[in-house]
Formats: sequence, structure tokens, C-alpha cells
Amino acid sequence: MAAQVAVCGPATATATELTHARRVGELLATHGAIVLCGGGGGVMAAVATAARTHHGLVVAVRPDDTHDNPTDVSVTIATNLGQARNAVLVWSADAVIAIGGSWGTLSEIALALRRDSIPVVVLDGWRITDPTGTPVPGPLHVDTPEEAVHAALSAMAD
Amino acid sequence: MAAQVAVCGPATATATELTHARRVGELLATHGAIVLCGGGGGVMAAVATAARTHHGLVVAVRPDDTHDNPTDVSVTIATNLGQARNAVLVWSADAVIAIGGSWGTLSEIALALRRDSIPVVVLDGWRITDPTGTPVPGPLHVDTPEEAVHAALSAMAD
Amino acid sequence: MAAQVAVCGPATATATELTHARRVGELLATHGAIVLCGGGGGVMAAVATAARTHHGLVVAVRPDDTHDNPTDVSVTIATNLGQARNAVLVWSADAVIAIGGSWGTLSEIALALRRDSIPVVVLDGWRITDPTGTPVPGPLHVDTPEEAVHAALSAMAD
Amino acid sequence: MAAQVAVCGPATATATELTHARRVGELLATHGAIVLCGGGGGVMAAVATAARTHHGLVVAVRPDDTHDNPTDVSVTIATNLGQARNAVLVWSADAVIAIGGSWGTLSEIALALRRDSIPVVVLDGWRITDPTGTPVPGPLHVDTPEEAVHAALSAMAD
Repeated sequence: MAAQVAVCGPATATATELTHARRVGELLATHGAIVLCGGGGGVMAAVATAARTHHGLVVAVRPDDTHDNPTDVSVTIATNLGQARNAVLVWSADAVIAIGGSWGTLSEIALALRRDSIPVVVLDGWRITDPTGTPVPGPLHVDTPEEAVHAALSAMAD
Repeated sequence: MAAQVAVCGPATATATELTHARRVGELLATHGAIVLCGGGGGVMAAVATAARTHHGLVVAVRPDDTHDNPTDVSVTIATNLGQARNAVLVWSADAVIAIGGSWGTLSEIALALRRDSIPVVVLDGWRITDPTGTPVPGPLHVDTPEEAVHAALSAMAD
Repeated sequence: MAAQVAVCGPATATATELTHARRVGELLATHGAIVLCGGGGGVMAAVATAARTHHGLVVAVRPDDTHDNPTDVSVTIATNLGQARNAVLVWSADAVIAIGGSWGTLSEIALALRRDSIPVVVLDGWRITDPTGTPVPGPLHVDTPEEAVHAALSAMAD
Repeated sequence: MAAQVAVCGPATATATELTHARRVGELLATHGAIVLCGGGGGVMAAVATAARTHHGLVVAVRPDDTHDNPTDVSVTIATNLGQARNAVLVWSADAVIAIGGSWGTLSEIALALRRDSIPVVVLDGWRITDPTGTPVPGPLHVDTPEEAVHAALSAMAD
């Protein structure tokens, strides 16, 4: 089965975050990876649209009970679980790429690292430190979409 | 987006149920519908294998945290929700076809009818009556895979 | 820890179902059992109010994100899981008593019997048969609140 | 209904974290608040035991399907949802107190702040900054159990 990569990020995103999301979607699709996203706007819609444009398979894992995605996707999982769908999203992923920062996105990073077995790549996102200011090991912080996708896919190939 | 049809049924199935499941999977795939199943054995594996053989898109919505399906699928959603995944499965469906009977299958029929908006077709499955023995309206009981798929897809087209 | 008994039933209930629910709530409270319910109206509110009146501990396991129960309870679990909360409700129970019939209630009966380890008592509720009309073994059908509570609590004591 | 305060923290905790947890449990119980916890060891068991010792009501919201808590509690919610139970835990809370740091605990902080309506107090826990190192507004960092409980309960009273 193809690699499944969850791409997480805020529904209200900056222009840079949207550009990053589109490039990540394009790269994942051209590498043959399945894109999982949250089925909302912002980063979620940008990655989905870009991956679909490049003939990728995109699965929206939505928090509500509707099938009305803001953008074209291949499959809709309407969990109706609220934010508990964040757990379903990351548990279904072979790797997670988080773009930008929001509390929902941070919950997905944390839940993915709680699993302790998949690469979690953060592009332009929030930092986590212990009380002394030392970064907590776990997330891999990168600066470009190319690095993000490379880190996600090569870690899986190990 | 293509129609998404959840096919539910027991992990331990009779030969007739397995034959039904294979034919339902074949028919859904040839009609271009996406097949959602629970990612287990028995009816779930039979419908998945048949749909994949006929070039269909199959999504396994699993109760646990593994991605190791008993059969080839296109996408794995590893919900890790236990039997609460039954709710995710039917909420994601545009129609539900239940083949055979089991408590898990009945929970999916009941959750689907709780939504009150999608066709729920039962092939060779359990019956539900009120205390006086009168059938409770809701499930559409059919006798053949052809009738099941026709009922599921034509109800959606209304 | 005290026995935890989930009492399930429709939000829109008949006068008989409400009378049954109140008596079940009273009996469970006087036997020292904790009452779990869905936090809605009808049977859920009736059993909660009666148990509280008799100094019982009542936990509402709600499908939404509000804490505004229609009746006084001791603890509110706001699952925000939609009908997937039905799984949480029955997994938390040492026994289930279902009063009356509805698709939500049937899903709880089915999910509870899927566990295959707790007593599931049905008072004045729907019947389940195989395709030949033979009752499917599992639910214990009773006629009075006294029988329902006795069956639930004595099965646990075995 | 009494205030419901979720107390989160790692299953493997330091001596300081355990001391903090016990004091938080004692204070919440003596203020009449209901304690929600994850039903595990470490911080979860310490806060539960202390609250029970001081006659508090403690609800364990467990990730698995067992009712076998490591310590005495009043009510067990066996969600069987895996880490998706973290969402149920914080959605059920009127305030969240996090003690110490772990990925599970961080997911609870993030999910609670995603709600944007309840106080989230962090005692001796991880810090979250944006990419420039600026703390992200939301969590209230405190240094003592007394401050944590005061912040949680007084914010609710506003």
C-alpha cells in the first residue's frame, strides 16, 4: 500500500503557509504518497487541492458529519468526532507534516509523538521546550517543503 | 466525488455470506462506487478483495492502531477507537449494505438508521421487530447482491 | 467501586417507558449502583431524575460539547463524539438496561452484546431475530423494572 | 453541578510532579470540585488518591476497555478510544490543570486551548513558542499547586 502522510495546519493560514502547503501537496502526490488532511480550509484545503491537481489520492478526515469539503478530495471520512478526529488522523498516518501553528495542529503533533513510532516533521511551526527552555526531542523542524517531504518519506523508508 | 458505500458484515462468515460479499464488491467497483469496510476478515475481506480485483477504491476503517489489513486495500484509516469506529464507518457512508448478522453489524445498521438520511440495505441479515412482532421500518431487506447494490445506489441518486 | 449500570432509551418516550425508567432509576439508586445515561431527555432524563431523588450518583455521557443537561446529574462527560458516545457509554458499564426502542438504543444493545461479557437487559424493547425468525441469543427480555434491575445486578454478582 | 477539573500529567512522573499532583488533588477535593483524570499511573494516580482521601469525587476517563484502575476512584469511564480519550477528558472539564510534561499531556493542553473557552493552567510543564521564540498566548503557567487550583477555580467563577 502507498505511504499515507497526514498534513496538518491551521484553517486560517498565512500566505507563506499556504504556499508551503501547496508545494507539500504537489511533492507528496508526485512521490505517490496518499495525502490525509483534516478536510477544512487554509492549509488543509491548499494541500488537498495541490495534491489532487497532481493526480494524488487525498483523504479528508473531517470533524463533523458533512461530506461537503471545501475542496475536491478522493475520499471523505466524516468522523463526527469533533477534535477527537485529530487522533484518528495521526493514527492513520505513516508520517505527519505540520505546517504553521494552531492549537489543533499542536494537538496533532503531540498525539503523533505520543505514538512514538512515526516521523513528525514541523515546517514553520510552533516550538516546544521544557521549563528550562531546552527543546523537547521529537519533532523534526525544517525550513522548506522539500525538506519536509524528504524527511517524512525517507524516515518511512528506513 | 464518487459515492461511498459502507459494506458491513461479520468477521466469521458463512460461505453464502462470503459469496454475497464478493459479488457486492464486484458490483460496487464496476459502478464506480468507493467501498468502505471495517478492515477485518470474513465479509470485510471478501468485499475488499473483490472490489480491488475489479479496480475499485477500497478504504478500510479499522478499529485498532495497525495498518496490517488482512487483504489489499487502497487506504487504511486506523481509528484506534475500538467499536466506536462503527460510527465513523457509517457516518462516512452515502449508503450502507449489511451482509449477514453479528452484533457489530447490527450496531452499524442501528447507527446508520439513527442518522435517518441514508439507505440501509440488509442482505440475508437479522430482523428487528417491536415487542408485538411488527417489523420496525427502516432497513430495506433484500435477497440478492444485485438488489442490494441497486437499492443502495438508486436511493442515492434520488 | 460501586456497580455502574447504563440505562438506555429513547429521548422521545411513551408514558409507560417513562414510568419504567423512573422505577429503574429509583431501584438502582437504592441498591447503591451508579447510573450511567446518555444525558438527553425522555428515558435518559427520567432515570437520572429518579436516581438523583433517591440520592444516587448519576453520570451523563453526552454526545455533544455542552454541559447543560436537561436534568440534574452528578457528573457530566461531554464526549463531543456524536453517536460514537454510545460505545463509550456501554464500554463503561458493568450491565446495560435498555427501556423501549429506538435506533440509538438498539445501537447500544448491539455494542454491549458485541463485548460479550456483560448482562444486557431489555425492558419493553425491540426484538432481534435471524432471517428465519428465531430470536438471536444475547439480550435478556424482561417485563418489569424490578426484573430488569434484579437481572442486571445479580448477573454482575455471579 | 460541581465544577469539574481535569488534572493531566505523565504516567511516569518525578517526585516533584507527584507531590504537586497530591496537593492539587487535596485542594480540589476540599474546594468541592470533581476531579477528572486519565485513570493511569503517575500524576493521574496521585491526584486521584489524594482527592479520594479528602472525600472528593474522582472520575477516571480511561483509554482502554478495562475498569481496573491503579487507584481507587468514584466512577470509571472506560472509553476504549485510545488517546482520543484525551479529547473526551478535556471536553468534559470546566478547567484543566496540567502537571509536568509528556506528549499525551501536551495533546490535552492543546485540545483544551482549541476549545478557547476554559482556563488551562500548567504547573511545571512544557512551554510553547512561535518560531521566533515568543510564547504563544493561552496556557497560564504557575509555580505552585495553590496557584494552579486558585487559577482554575477563580477563572471559572468569573
